[in-house]
Amino acid sequence: MNLRLYNERTLLQRLRRTGEASKADLARWAQLTNTAVGSIVQSLEESHLIEPAGRRQEGQRGQPAGLYRINPEGAYGIGVRLDRTSIETVLIDLGGRILAREAHDLLLPHPDEALALVRKSITRMLSVLDGTQRRRLMGVGLAQPYNLGSWLRELDLKADFRIWDEVDFGAMLSQAVEQPVFKENDGNAAAIAELFFGVGREESDFLYVFIGAALGAGAVIGGESLRGSSGNAADLGLMPVLPSRLASAPPTDRRWDILLSRASLNALTRHLRHSGLPVRNHDDLEGHVASGGRAVDEWLDDCVDALVPSLRASLAVLDLPAVVIDCDIDDGLIDKLVRRVDAGLREIAPEARQTPRLLRGSFGTNAGAVGAASLPMFFSFSPRADVLRGQPASAFSHTAKETTHA
Amino acid sequence: MNLRLYNERTLLQRLRRTGEASKADLARWAQLTNTAVGSIVQSLEESHLIEPAGRRQEGQRGQPAGLYRINPEGAYGIGVRLDRTSIETVLIDLGGRILAREAHDLLLPHPDEALALVRKSITRMLSVLDGTQRRRLMGVGLAQPYNLGSWLRELDLKADFRIWDEVDFGAMLSQAVEQPVFKENDGNAAAIAELFFGVGREESDFLYVFIGAALGAGAVIGGESLRGSSGNAADLGLMPVLPSRLASAPPTDRRWDILLSRASLNALTRHLRHSGLPVRNHDDLEGHVASGGRAVDEWLDDCVDALVPSLRASLAVLDLPAVVIDCDIDDGLIDKLVRRVDAGLREIAPEARQTPRLLRGSFGTNAGAVGAASLPMFFSFSPRADVLRGQPASAFSHTAKETTHA
Repeated sequence: MNLRLYNERTLLQRLRRTGEASKADLARWAQLTNTAVGSIVQSLEESHLIEPAGRRQEGQRGQPAGLYRINPEGAYGIGVRLDRTSIETVLIDLGGRILAREAHDLLLPHPDEALALVRKSITRMLSVLDGTQRRRLMGVGLAQPYNLGSWLRELDLKADFRIWDEVDFGAMLSQAVEQPVFKENDGNAAAIAELFFGVGREESDFLYVFIGAALGAGAVIGGESLRGSSGNAADLGLMPVLPSRLASAPPTDRRWDILLSRASLNALTRHLRHSGLPVRNHDDLEGHVASGGRAVDEWLDDCVDALVPSLRASLAVLDLPAVVIDCDIDDGLIDKLVRRVDAGLREIAPEARQTPRLLRGSFGTNAGAVGAASLPMFFSFSPRADVLRGQPASAFSHTAKETTHA
Repeated sequence: MNLRLYNERTLLQRLRRTGEASKADLARWAQLTNTAVGSIVQSLEESHLIEPAGRRQEGQRGQPAGLYRINPEGAYGIGVRLDRTSIETVLIDLGGRILAREAHDLLLPHPDEALALVRKSITRMLSVLDGTQRRRLMGVGLAQPYNLGSWLRELDLKADFRIWDEVDFGAMLSQAVEQPVFKENDGNAAAIAELFFGVGREESDFLYVFIGAALGAGAVIGGESLRGSSGNAADLGLMPVLPSRLASAPPTDRRWDILLSRASLNALTRHLRHSGLPVRNHDDLEGHVASGGRAVDEWLDDCVDALVPSLRASLAVLDLPAVVIDCDIDDGLIDKLVRRVDAGLREIAPEARQTPRLLRGSFGTNAGAVGAASLPMFFSFSPRADVLRGQPASAFSHTAKETTHA
């Protein structure tokens, strides 16, 4: 039973990666019998997760083989991304397309108030779907930094979010919207989006780094997201780094600072302001990045200087062949980061060790929200070893019954 | 079929951990039916992997329940540990006891010569076993540093081992001794010994660090050893660290050195010699550690100073609740290391993050060899997810046939 489910998901993954395949292709690839694949394909088609994609002539004679592909309308996911200064909600389909999106830029309010906001957004998302589509909604993904109440000094925030470390927003949300809620920290969620909809179509092993207000990261190993004992694996933002040499950095007498205080857009904002440039909002920040200028370059130097040894350390620990870099702002910044980090990693490469391939992320500013929305689909449709062990994904469930897909 | 095998291994693991259990205990714990457990227990007993362990009265009435435990004589493993300055071979049983041991302290010779040495040792080990025991030999484990030919400068070795990076010693050995050979790098092998026979009886998630001539490490996550894309995960020895401040350290103009050049007994040896103390061999080194003295303390300061941020970085990446520290020399050194590292980790703990529990390793100077010998047993008897996926352990096999246990 578990093995059947695992094999179903393996074939779904294969179709996500190859685009189109015949039953014979799938059987060959998965080393399953034609009968087993035929039965799995039939049930995947009946549940609308895959659809016919025409026919292809194979060899000289015989009937052309029927091809199958993922049906983008086969499943839907809603994602909620909470950050210290924004709340974002999106609806995506199984093809990874964003069908609806709502964002609030605000200092994170009390959980009750945030719940009211998110609930309204989700209601509007649901109204986009008809009855059939709504039955294919796999649930709500919730992505939020693990300790919302911490690192406010490093992030230059004058606020008190401690209440957020005390409430279980996932459970609250699940109750309120009567949907299963899948929760991950924001870095892991974005890495899962990359795995399910982005570079994961080609790569099964990579380190994912997202430079936003803070720094998020995730590790993908053998097509699975590394969770860690407390759900906080690949928490690169907390890696020890030498203190910044920028004049804008808060003075410290500690020998070790943490990576997020240097490799983050928050550090860039601080440095721009320190250099006399006004930054009132995200658009201002983007404007400064687009026009370049010395302050941006100075921050970039400092950011890369901190990031490179942390990445080398992470790669020594995880032994991964690729690093994906994404950022909340593009305007050339992502390419610059990729180029600079690549050069930096080569410069301090230990003897006899390769430098990993550096790749651009797929989602940029949408990484967090698409990451959140990917969670219900990833946990419902990805061939994770837990499926074999009979351990279901740990979702907050609003009722005792198992949600079924139809 | 795969699930049955996985369940067998899960019950074996349970018995390794609890010592003794009845069929009812096992069924309750594994959430399997009594019939399923009865059938598994029967086949494990028939293959001599477990044995009866008396009876226990459960409740007021009825027959006392039969208990089972691991049969230490149910399986055997041979381990070969190659290092740049030694070759060690051991024979252990399923209880983790060392039944025979041979060590050669020598600068690693040409692979052909090493093969002749190892082959003789293995022949002597095999002569210890009678016919029945020999049929229960699960194979040979080979543990060696990943790049024997590298880091000779950091390790103060004037030798040329490049030939070792070119030959496949695992395949050579498998051919020569007609046994399946399981190969891991030395750090991962020692971590697997700890998982299978040591702290793994209580812990399923830990980072393992071994301070020997160089520095070896391994990561255990959910009861599995993290391998990495090239078999080199948890390669802590190559993490970037600031250059040593010891006068004995080789001068460098690089900004980043690697951890093994500071946190290793090689660095201690160098510092003792620099301080005018003679170190001709391992016994000399042990003598200096036992008598303490300023040079040992100076190295210890420098070692911990490098180790602490590297461990913090590793834990940020892996999110593990425990760190096991072991060392090739004890005489109080391991306890000192544990205490100092614990204090250091607390000192630079990031806000809102726990400091992991620090534990002593179980095998000390035998960690490498027992680690190697654990490999055939770990890959044959541990409930790894690969078993469910139908992916066998990647052993070098001398023949095409599957080895069976009897």
